[in-house]
Amino acid sequence: MSTSIRVMILGTGRMGSGIAGLVLEKPSLELAGAIGRRKDRAGMDLGRAIGLDRDLGLALECDLDAAIDRIQPDVAIQATCSRLVEARGDILALLGRSVPVISIAEEMAHPASAVPGIAAEIDDLARRRGVAVVGTGINPGFVLDLLIIAMSGVCSEIESINARRVNDLSPYGRTVLSAQGVGLTPEAFEAGVAEGRVVGHIGFVQSIRMIAEAVGWQIERIEETRRPIIAQRHCETPVVSISPGQVAGCLHSARAFRGGKPVIELVHPQQIRPDLHGVETGDEIIINGTPPVHLTGRPEIPGGQGTTALAVNMIPRVLSAPPGLHTMADLPVPAAMLGGFCNG
Amino acid sequence: MSTSIRVMILGTGRMGSGIAGLVLEKPSLELAGAIGRRKDRAGMDLGRAIGLDRDLGLALECDLDAAIDRIQPDVAIQATCSRLVEARGDILALLGRSVPVISIAEEMAHPASAVPGIAAEIDDLARRRGVAVVGTGINPGFVLDLLIIAMSGVCSEIESINARRVNDLSPYGRTVLSAQGVGLTPEAFEAGVAEGRVVGHIGFVQSIRMIAEAVGWQIERIEETRRPIIAQRHCETPVVSISPGQVAGCLHSARAFRGGKPVIELVHPQQIRPDLHGVETGDEIIINGTPPVHLTGRPEIPGGQGTTALAVNMIPRVLSAPPGLHTMADLPVPAAMLGGFCNG
Repeated sequence: MSTSIRVMILGTGRMGSGIAGLVLEKPSLELAGAIGRRKDRAGMDLGRAIGLDRDLGLALECDLDAAIDRIQPDVAIQATCSRLVEARGDILALLGRSVPVISIAEEMAHPASAVPGIAAEIDDLARRRGVAVVGTGINPGFVLDLLIIAMSGVCSEIESINARRVNDLSPYGRTVLSAQGVGLTPEAFEAGVAEGRVVGHIGFVQSIRMIAEAVGWQIERIEETRRPIIAQRHCETPVVSISPGQVAGCLHSARAFRGGKPVIELVHPQQIRPDLHGVETGDEIIINGTPPVHLTGRPEIPGGQGTTALAVNMIPRVLSAPPGLHTMADLPVPAAMLGGFCNG
Repeated sequence: MSTSIRVMILGTGRMGSGIAGLVLEKPSLELAGAIGRRKDRAGMDLGRAIGLDRDLGLALECDLDAAIDRIQPDVAIQATCSRLVEARGDILALLGRSVPVISIAEEMAHPASAVPGIAAEIDDLARRRGVAVVGTGINPGFVLDLLIIAMSGVCSEIESINARRVNDLSPYGRTVLSAQGVGLTPEAFEAGVAEGRVVGHIGFVQSIRMIAEAVGWQIERIEETRRPIIAQRHCETPVVSISPGQVAGCLHSARAFRGGKPVIELVHPQQIRPDLHGVETGDEIIINGTPPVHLTGRPEIPGGQGTTALAVNMIPRVLSAPPGLHTMADLPVPAAMLGGFCNG
């Protein structure tokens, strides 16, 4: 009876494939097409492209503009990149054809803190075309920002906010591990940080700006530090094997100052095999306020599964949102999409 | 430079007084007036009426219609009652004069599950007058519904939801303790439940309907049980003193069924002096899903402080919401209002 929502996916990496697979499971959604980056995979059956053992009868596309015109999706989910400058072109192409967009690019969680000019360009085009666009993901986009903001809602005053997300890098592939410096010597880690090859977590600035905007704090400056987590013993994952003394991960943290004092501190250590190091993974939010808030999630919400679900669960929210660029704090909270689709 | 928001408070009991006091602390808000129920207090200085030791130069009012016309508030907060039938008249009077409303009446968290006709009447009038109305509070309105819905957003599938809020009744007055059966014999407790005098928590149906609507579950039936929590030792609070064997509180729980199985279970034991009974207070949310979610808050968010803060922190949300009746799940999450006012 009801018409299903036609969803286009950009990206067929680990995240894009997971999102496409979840769209296939939802009766109210229809996987209408997907765009891959690699030209040599164009035309491949989409089922195979996302790792299923069956054909879907849909070809993987590589020309975004042509695909939008032909497929005419109701919404697109972008899972291709982390940075706003990389995300910009495809988002503008989609908005320009009046397709609402959900992006899991980390900087899209609060793009104005990455490149204000691009954020304004996206917002302007979305408004002119009458569609909404939002960035989401487990972090930034949920644990260290939206959840903190929601919890702040029970407070009449707040002195400071401390939050920590400790997660396990063991399931991740080489690209992610390399961005965290896993397997380097401590000296190479420090050089990698200095040269921008070891980036740690992308999204602290986005999370801090979202929180500060929501509660009305003027932030003077943000300090970020990246320290190596040194392996105490031999550690293996499916893609890496490291010895004691090598880098097992990155302890990345950020502090935001107001009136010369740190008022928001976000800490996000990520390492392989925390289990071998006596490290308990988890999410924790402490609000030093009236009343004080202390929230703990054990273990942490897994990043991959959480981001996949959020991208899909935000579909009804972006379809019923007013035109323009939104953050997760501007829209009603996501909810698991377990029944029929309910727009609005 | 900026114009402050003129807030009217309905009710000068414990909650109304707390809300009025918080409005006074916020530079972006102005306490424009308050309505009391007791005619013999009309004309009393509002500062004294809400328990301050100073005059505010504002008189406590008792005629709502006249007060609205004279004060012309930008928003009103209702803190007078729990039930929709009691809340209805004042809400309609406010909406009829185009005043947006925030209510902490428990049944206003999801009024359609209390009396659908009244919910429709409120929604219709709010839309015609172009203003928004929302029910909020720590529970229902936040812990056992909005927070659960938000956490469901990281899940792709959910089998069942279990949540528990264990709180301490020791700070509460006689009215609340009596509604929980505190001080009764176990036999008198059971009779009180049967006769509707011992009500336990008001809001399970609201919370369950909010969750079910958000995730798209059709609920077949809701079962509620109220069991006495028996004092194991002598317990005292400022207003009551009970002996071992008497009722120290009410273990109220609700289960919602779908396909014959319980899919949402909310448990809310409330008692005096949990500390003397080895009971740790706290909030806990368990989602049996993909991924599983286990969130714990220790101790519980205090009900009075939390509801006071939520009522005030929802002011910007209700002012920027589209006209009509909303639940907390329809609007962006509340945030602590720590800086200047930001509408939208």
